[in-house]
Amino acid sequence: MEKLIGAAVVGQSGGPTSAINATLAGVIRGAFPEKGKTITALYGMRNGIEGLISKNLVDLFERFKGSECEREQMLSELEHTPAAALGSCRKKLPVPEKDDQFYKSLIDVFKEYNIRYFFYIGGNDSMDTVAKLSAYLKNSDYDMRVIGLPKTIDNDLPGTDHTPGFGSAAKFIAATMQEIIRDCAVYTIPAVTIVEIMGRDAGWLTASAALPRIICGVAPDFVYLPERSFDMEKFLIDVKSELAKKPNVVIAVSEGLRFADGKYVGEGTQSGVVDVFGHKYLAGTGKALEHTVKREIGCKVRSIELNLPQRCAAHITSLTDLTESAEVGQFGFNAAIEGNTGSIISIIRNNDSKYSVSYKVLDISEAANKTRHVPDEFINERGNNVTDECLEYIKPLILGEPNIRYEGGIPYNFVI
Amino acid sequence: MEKLIGAAVVGQSGGPTSAINATLAGVIRGAFPEKGKTITALYGMRNGIEGLISKNLVDLFERFKGSECEREQMLSELEHTPAAALGSCRKKLPVPEKDDQFYKSLIDVFKEYNIRYFFYIGGNDSMDTVAKLSAYLKNSDYDMRVIGLPKTIDNDLPGTDHTPGFGSAAKFIAATMQEIIRDCAVYTIPAVTIVEIMGRDAGWLTASAALPRIICGVAPDFVYLPERSFDMEKFLIDVKSELAKKPNVVIAVSEGLRFADGKYVGEGTQSGVVDVFGHKYLAGTGKALEHTVKREIGCKVRSIELNLPQRCAAHITSLTDLTESAEVGQFGFNAAIEGNTGSIISIIRNNDSKYSVSYKVLDISEAANKTRHVPDEFINERGNNVTDECLEYIKPLILGEPNIRYEGGIPYNFVI
Repeated sequence: MEKLIGAAVVGQSGGPTSAINATLAGVIRGAFPEKGKTITALYGMRNGIEGLISKNLVDLFERFKGSECEREQMLSELEHTPAAALGSCRKKLPVPEKDDQFYKSLIDVFKEYNIRYFFYIGGNDSMDTVAKLSAYLKNSDYDMRVIGLPKTIDNDLPGTDHTPGFGSAAKFIAATMQEIIRDCAVYTIPAVTIVEIMGRDAGWLTASAALPRIICGVAPDFVYLPERSFDMEKFLIDVKSELAKKPNVVIAVSEGLRFADGKYVGEGTQSGVVDVFGHKYLAGTGKALEHTVKREIGCKVRSIELNLPQRCAAHITSLTDLTESAEVGQFGFNAAIEGNTGSIISIIRNNDSKYSVSYKVLDISEAANKTRHVPDEFINERGNNVTDECLEYIKPLILGEPNIRYEGGIPYNFVI
Repeated sequence: MEKLIGAAVVGQSGGPTSAINATLAGVIRGAFPEKGKTITALYGMRNGIEGLISKNLVDLFERFKGSECEREQMLSELEHTPAAALGSCRKKLPVPEKDDQFYKSLIDVFKEYNIRYFFYIGGNDSMDTVAKLSAYLKNSDYDMRVIGLPKTIDNDLPGTDHTPGFGSAAKFIAATMQEIIRDCAVYTIPAVTIVEIMGRDAGWLTASAALPRIICGVAPDFVYLPERSFDMEKFLIDVKSELAKKPNVVIAVSEGLRFADGKYVGEGTQSGVVDVFGHKYLAGTGKALEHTVKREIGCKVRSIELNLPQRCAAHITSLTDLTESAEVGQFGFNAAIEGNTGSIISIIRNNDSKYSVSYKVLDISEAANKTRHVPDEFINERGNNVTDECLEYIKPLILGEPNIRYEGGIPYNFVI
């Protein structure tokens, strides 16, 4: 493989996570040893590919200059900062066969800055960008290596044991569920609490709500994932039978629950807005179920939407997740230097008795535009909970607490 | 003052907080040195006064037995456990002149267990219980000392610089607001995010949302407290003018916002449920404003209700708050031993350049059934933000991070 000398550019795309900046830190960590050798400059795109096309770039070698010790301090602070430090976007690239103007403009920018390495940190939709761009480049005469670095709290990318960002979101959800269950247990009046959790198509985050069960015996009474059709009658039977046993019933539900006819449970309370990828915007499953329980059972009922903190509560993150997210970035950078392109980095869980991982380069086609669901054997027969096997799979991903620097009583954030 | 020998009983009442168990730990810490001397037994009421009347008591000397070192370990774990470890209730005592049967039954229980010390950890409504019970006892021949230990995330009790539990809730809100603002800043599309914060009558918690402003310059663009009438037209003008300047507008609103006519902003979306103290149950201010912005401005808009985690997110608490909450419990215990009754413990902020506090015994009549509002000078003239002076008052209360023990990736909880 011929040595390709030039600039590198890195961007973040899609919904932010608590760990997306750790992957950026990993890319920066990988680039510095190559500075002035293979890599002539390291640029960050402001707001993903939208910033790239408008040449809104930030010089990351300059931003992270200093001694190795100073740089490590900055990178550690960046790792503990939530949301995409470079900004994000939700730009969907056109199909090149139909409209190649955008690609031609991009190549003009690449040429202007002599960009030869392209790293894109994102989820399912961002991997679509990586797939289209690398496919387009294969048929062009511009030599550039394109690497997708996975990121999604949803854990729904195929070809990887789990996704960077998932462990921290799962930890936040598990810790918060324990707290909510303790809070709800203080009264003796019959009450139902419904906690709505992110995950439009895949139930991994909702499953995480049950984690405290295998850790300390505390758990939601029911867990409903989008992998199973939701049956309102069965749900009401579940809730009533549990209320007959004890006063406080706590339920975890996915925002993406659908009835057998494909209609979302929360659809009735929604405005029907659709994002650029054609996904319906959902936020009403918990509220819809709250109203149904109120009407059909009549007890005290509350719904809680965990909302944005699931993807940005950087004050409680998984050290395992942050470490792996950073390693994915650094591994991906080195994979590009070694000649890979049109690739995504995946995490392999080693077959050891103690949890450990390794990283692998996969063809981007194995990940883009596909969704990895919670498998059948991880869901109980009645479809109202997850199995211990499912929780044992998730548990190692939430382990470890990073040493977060506080300033004035709140976590210190690093701004690029 | 004659030495009063007998059993002590402690209960928790009203909504739980992240620090309510720290005050319980303080009472236990105060009692142990008196064990077998003044105090013959230490009981915990299960579910407050409801558990007391039905003799559902737990022997706390037994539960916390062991070496002093083992006990301190258990008390520290109890301090880091959210929600009322003894359970809670929302029982309103009858007016004794109208109905004294409940009081007679209580005194029967006191006599049976020879209970001579009564500690009640709670908020405004629980202090009503302390006031009524101590007034009733004054006119009876049963000698018992009754002490109220303040607890409320709302910070709305008079006679105290601030309330135990507020600092931890304020820290959670401040840290979460910083995270939400960072998350919202990643996109360039115009968007309004409305964060609904607890505090039915007093705006202290909503004010805390602005704390990051004086810490790191990050802040919600507008902060609306229930102390000012809400004007929808002025609100829409505020939002539109800010959207003209930048794409992302983040707003903190109190759940208790009302129009000038006294009607709650969220009332239209509510069921109008009233709790036993006659308070309206609110949960719709953010949603109501979300719909109005959607309709009147038409941009992307999201509302986030911080909900229960505000009072139970024990994974992020203020060390200052936990320490003071425990000290209030211990000070209150000693105040009872010294002969005080019909009292509440208040926190005094010392006039030092460095923040420090002392504790004082107040007559319960100075706190029960009153609300301490955010003063006028802490709110800006337009009524859409708080002043720096307000934030300087709150800031010391959120400082310090306790060393929380994690087990299996989530905080370890101590169960009584």
